[in-house]
Amino acid sequence: MKNSILIAAMTIIAGSLHAQTADDSIVLRKMANEILSHGGAYENLRALTKQVGPRLSGSAGAEKAVMVTAKMLKDAGADTVILQECMVPHWVRGEKESAKLILADGKERILRIAALGNAIGTGPKGVKAEVVEVRDFKELDQLGATGAIKGKIVFYNHPMDPTFVKTFFAYGEAGPYRHVGASRAAKYGAVGTIVRSLASNLDDHPHTGAMNYIDSLPKIPAVAISTNDAEYLSGALKNKTAKQVYFRSNCEMLPDAKSYNVIGVLRGSEFPNEVLTVGGHLDSWDLAEGAHDDGTGCTQSIEVIRAFKALGIRPKRTIHAVMFMNEENGGRGGDKYAEEAKKDGKKYLFAIESDAGGFVPRALGLSVRGEQKAKLWPYERLFKSYDIAFGEGGGGSDIGPLASAGTIMASMNPDSQRYFDVHHAETDVFEAVSRRELHLGAFAMAGILYIVSEYGL
Amino acid sequence: MKNSILIAAMTIIAGSLHAQTADDSIVLRKMANEILSHGGAYENLRALTKQVGPRLSGSAGAEKAVMVTAKMLKDAGADTVILQECMVPHWVRGEKESAKLILADGKERILRIAALGNAIGTGPKGVKAEVVEVRDFKELDQLGATGAIKGKIVFYNHPMDPTFVKTFFAYGEAGPYRHVGASRAAKYGAVGTIVRSLASNLDDHPHTGAMNYIDSLPKIPAVAISTNDAEYLSGALKNKTAKQVYFRSNCEMLPDAKSYNVIGVLRGSEFPNEVLTVGGHLDSWDLAEGAHDDGTGCTQSIEVIRAFKALGIRPKRTIHAVMFMNEENGGRGGDKYAEEAKKDGKKYLFAIESDAGGFVPRALGLSVRGEQKAKLWPYERLFKSYDIAFGEGGGGSDIGPLASAGTIMASMNPDSQRYFDVHHAETDVFEAVSRRELHLGAFAMAGILYIVSEYGL
Repeated sequence: MKNSILIAAMTIIAGSLHAQTADDSIVLRKMANEILSHGGAYENLRALTKQVGPRLSGSAGAEKAVMVTAKMLKDAGADTVILQECMVPHWVRGEKESAKLILADGKERILRIAALGNAIGTGPKGVKAEVVEVRDFKELDQLGATGAIKGKIVFYNHPMDPTFVKTFFAYGEAGPYRHVGASRAAKYGAVGTIVRSLASNLDDHPHTGAMNYIDSLPKIPAVAISTNDAEYLSGALKNKTAKQVYFRSNCEMLPDAKSYNVIGVLRGSEFPNEVLTVGGHLDSWDLAEGAHDDGTGCTQSIEVIRAFKALGIRPKRTIHAVMFMNEENGGRGGDKYAEEAKKDGKKYLFAIESDAGGFVPRALGLSVRGEQKAKLWPYERLFKSYDIAFGEGGGGSDIGPLASAGTIMASMNPDSQRYFDVHHAETDVFEAVSRRELHLGAFAMAGILYIVSEYGL
Repeated sequence: MKNSILIAAMTIIAGSLHAQTADDSIVLRKMANEILSHGGAYENLRALTKQVGPRLSGSAGAEKAVMVTAKMLKDAGADTVILQECMVPHWVRGEKESAKLILADGKERILRIAALGNAIGTGPKGVKAEVVEVRDFKELDQLGATGAIKGKIVFYNHPMDPTFVKTFFAYGEAGPYRHVGASRAAKYGAVGTIVRSLASNLDDHPHTGAMNYIDSLPKIPAVAISTNDAEYLSGALKNKTAKQVYFRSNCEMLPDAKSYNVIGVLRGSEFPNEVLTVGGHLDSWDLAEGAHDDGTGCTQSIEVIRAFKALGIRPKRTIHAVMFMNEENGGRGGDKYAEEAKKDGKKYLFAIESDAGGFVPRALGLSVRGEQKAKLWPYERLFKSYDIAFGEGGGGSDIGPLASAGTIMASMNPDSQRYFDVHHAETDVFEAVSRRELHLGAFAMAGILYIVSEYGL
């Protein structure tokens, strides 16, 4: 008797879940059709990259990007658009840096370099010294102990490991040489560092990116070198034709500047005090148009609002489409958003970030466990029709500060093969983005937000 | 008792399969590492696209491509390289075509067009007529029945449907207007046809491609128009500002020419008379460098040979890496290969084709059922580590003729989002290919060939 009641109950639940997911499947199909046929992310991205362009925190470009995306969110149909003030670091590159390799025979060869973000400059005289190449910190420490680093420029020549299929792992593995290589070398008396660009290809474009100094150690200039020139320099050092390297960088850190997160709000119809956050970061490096990093995440998030509005779908829960400021060299926008979230009395239920490029979506990364996972995972099959899987674990640096208050973290995980060819380099331009790939990613985000807005977590 | 024996037997089988796949997993990891770190496909593709360039069947480019890839196969370590003679159609574009829209106010606007492959030319006077736009054959037949087509140019304006996630379905759906639109229009007295390029994006580049005439109907000139100009022309027709279109094409079909399939052979150590075929097609359209279509498939197939040799893996079964000639406008190379296969006394066990672009591999498409499927599918998990799935159904037009003799058909299925942006257009260039994506695809092919060469089917 008990068993038969249980079976009957399960049948009813299964039946209703089936009907429900059939309806959801129709909604998702409408969303996909709308976004693939009429999506606005691509044209918004064109405007953000070509009309605004580079938009490093504190720059005029960043200021313009705030106004431009606020208007895009309004045009997409956001109920309100909030400019959330935050102070951001204001690092400037100054006059373009230069470098040359001085060869043993007295000839010179230009090296293509770019100062790392947050680094100090060399001053007008530049730095000129012999170069010591190391592959990793172990080699640095060994040489450092012998005194061989003192007065030299340290050249970190650590390529991204091509055998990682997910390129973010290779980026993570090679990252520390850029992040903390300068201080680690300064400890042994180095006068400057040159780091091989964190790039998955060989070309002539240096890739910048954030570095940070360890306060207790001397600050020395730090630049990235293009992968082609890293290969050349390494060869010249090996065959003893390299005598010295000279480089000059003119960057400096100015006082903090006022800036904003831009938040488009779509009010929930049933649970307006439960907030679902979708976002990308609005700032970009100064060298690039910031297309894949992260104009795509921003314009996909705006597209989520547009798609809901265009289809007349009012979400049950409130959606925030957030253009976070200052992901690249400070994370102040993400911190500010979480700080305000803790104060406003709303429940920040779920947050998804797109900051891995506008490539074809492979998975929605979801940091859910137990009951929440059991609730969410059955919806994976709705996304599989679009070749999008659910993956365990997700999040991002801008939404990260929300996690401590219990917000469920998620990410849109696009294919990663091409990202580090262009990441933080002047090649990260609009033309490197595929309209269909961008829009499929926007659909993935809109789709999961629809499911969570309908059913909670 | 019986049960315990069964369980014991199953445990032994499971144990040995486990050990076996663990070894296979190591071999596959070595292959992936080798190809991702030292793969030669990308540089071979650079040579094929930049030094050889366009290579339509019968052209000097095609002839050069035969010699160049024969050398590449030799350099990759093929035991022998066979030039397999076949006669191919020899269509030439002649002087570049031109077109203009004559507006009601007498002004003119240039339209960007390209003659379709196999089409006749207009002759030096060109064709000048009013234009009738149709979306599909139903509209054509309705208008044709009223006599409205007679003496006109038919403009097939059928966009690829953006809502198909797998773009090949949209290509298939829109394909007939290019393939047989001319004859269908000629039936109603049309004097020429303009077909909207089969493209998934809006740009200025016409996409050519094969068409064929129905013998019983008059042959009329047929050209493709860029998607931007298709939109423009459609607008001008709708708002009645279009008066006539003039176009001139200078193409013609010459007598068949002698050409070759290029086959690199890696002899099997245990079953040399069982052949596994891996291939792409060597010919390309004359407008393009033929990078994604199909320089990538060719250079990936060469890379399979190189990877086996570099790792010192002698396959148990013989591998043929085949550069098929004439896929684009005749399929004669595929026919010839199958014809010879039927004669040489060997068993052609398995054939895999890469002719969907050099994009990130999503799946290996495998046309296997029953026991063969049960044997092959457990290996899927080895490929999942590389984000490559097994998909049901696979094949291709060059290997297709082998199927009737029982060869198992397969394909490397890359992501399809970007393919039809460049397919058959002058934008299909080396720069549109990602080294990592190309090499991952080569790994997928090498990996499945390793499994089939080790274990048969």
